[in-house]
Amino acid sequence: MAPSAAERLRALRLELPPPPRPAGTYAPVVVAEGRAFISGQIVTEGGTVVRPGRVDHDVSADVAKELAQRATLQGLSALNAALGSLDRVRRFLRVAVYVASSPGFDRQHEVANGATELLVDLFGEDGRPARVAVGVAVLPLNAPVEVEFLLAVE
Amino acid sequence: MAPSAAERLRALRLELPPPPRPAGTYAPVVVAEGRAFISGQIVTEGGTVVRPGRVDHDVSADVAKELAQRATLQGLSALNAALGSLDRVRRFLRVAVYVASSPGFDRQHEVANGATELLVDLFGEDGRPARVAVGVAVLPLNAPVEVEFLLAVE
Amino acid sequence: MAPSAAERLRALRLELPPPPRPAGTYAPVVVAEGRAFISGQIVTEGGTVVRPGRVDHDVSADVAKELAQRATLQGLSALNAALGSLDRVRRFLRVAVYVASSPGFDRQHEVANGATELLVDLFGEDGRPARVAVGVAVLPLNAPVEVEFLLAVE
Repeated sequence: MAPSAAERLRALRLELPPPPRPAGTYAPVVVAEGRAFISGQIVTEGGTVVRPGRVDHDVSADVAKELAQRATLQGLSALNAALGSLDRVRRFLRVAVYVASSPGFDRQHEVANGATELLVDLFGEDGRPARVAVGVAVLPLNAPVEVEFLLAVE
Repeated sequence: MAPSAAERLRALRLELPPPPRPAGTYAPVVVAEGRAFISGQIVTEGGTVVRPGRVDHDVSADVAKELAQRATLQGLSALNAALGSLDRVRRFLRVAVYVASSPGFDRQHEVANGATELLVDLFGEDGRPARVAVGVAVLPLNAPVEVEFLLAVE
Repeated sequence: MAPSAAERLRALRLELPPPPRPAGTYAPVVVAEGRAFISGQIVTEGGTVVRPGRVDHDVSADVAKELAQRATLQGLSALNAALGSLDRVRRFLRVAVYVASSPGFDRQHEVANGATELLVDLFGEDGRPARVAVGVAVLPLNAPVEVEFLLAVE
């Protein structure tokens, strides 16, 4: 039997952070009719954005990729809180990665791999979603990376 | 019995504007298999964008929040025209808020509350969606705010 | 009997390009429970982006509209490879068009018509989706246009 996502997390020495608190009028996760919609995740610690700024100008592409991974852990924590267990994950369908980008930075797809490589590590091929990656002007609280998820759940 | 969305609108002294006409080859709303996809809404009057420009530079954050509310009323008008009644709304699933932003403006989440606070006022917890808010370079017709909706319908 | 999408393509003297190879950890198309999610498409030839740059500054709006059409052909090629046939298309639900834009360019909706006019030409009213069009700072590999698709399939 394949190891669970929780077991794979431990094997990778990764931990889910506390579930994020919404910074406004929205739900961290909406679960309805076999789908879970996870709100856009920016990486915060104690309510403060980690490593604010624009990628390439203030934050390197490598750091941005790590932040995409951490945003994914945060999203999984919100999901775990909503579902009770990551065992209810069936298939990641879509991931959108928004990267606050200097005009000359065009490697948003490499930043986005920080999110989707972790999903494949944890969920195998069921973690490989369709994806969109774009470079935006600025993100809430000057975050460099925001990641949004849609998945099928049991 | 809880008041209907139409009754709550009246209590808030708000009115649905005329349904928007598509500015191109797309459907204002696609209804299929229990879902309604509402196209991105920018606030127009008589075909002209209201308060064009970038948030923080040309338009204040407070005005932008009001525009997010008006974009939501416009989206609900399109939905009402497509469904025949807002009583068929079951649950808002996802709202995306795009804010044309000056480089230094990072309160897109506050602008986005203009959309989602109205949804919660009208539909209660069924109006509380997953949400993504991002700051983009520019929007069609130089609109400061564009809002997109996905919901479950009867 | 209405002509198939493949027949209409031939009548328009258009051809599906080779299916795109993913530039990272994601699936070109995810098909699950009656839906197909097509990843964001940027137009490439032999792995290189066609006509890189920002719309209005480096690339005209007309060229950008053509690129939106080509991105759609590329997406349909990925879909065809995933489904085995475009005859399984039931209805396009949502198309998102991201346009790398000079600050003064606000005709993203006209660029987006390059995608959705082709869908309507090929699939009739079932090809008319809900749509969102936004102007972003920069796209992966400095592409001027990226297009993402969601549809219902048999």
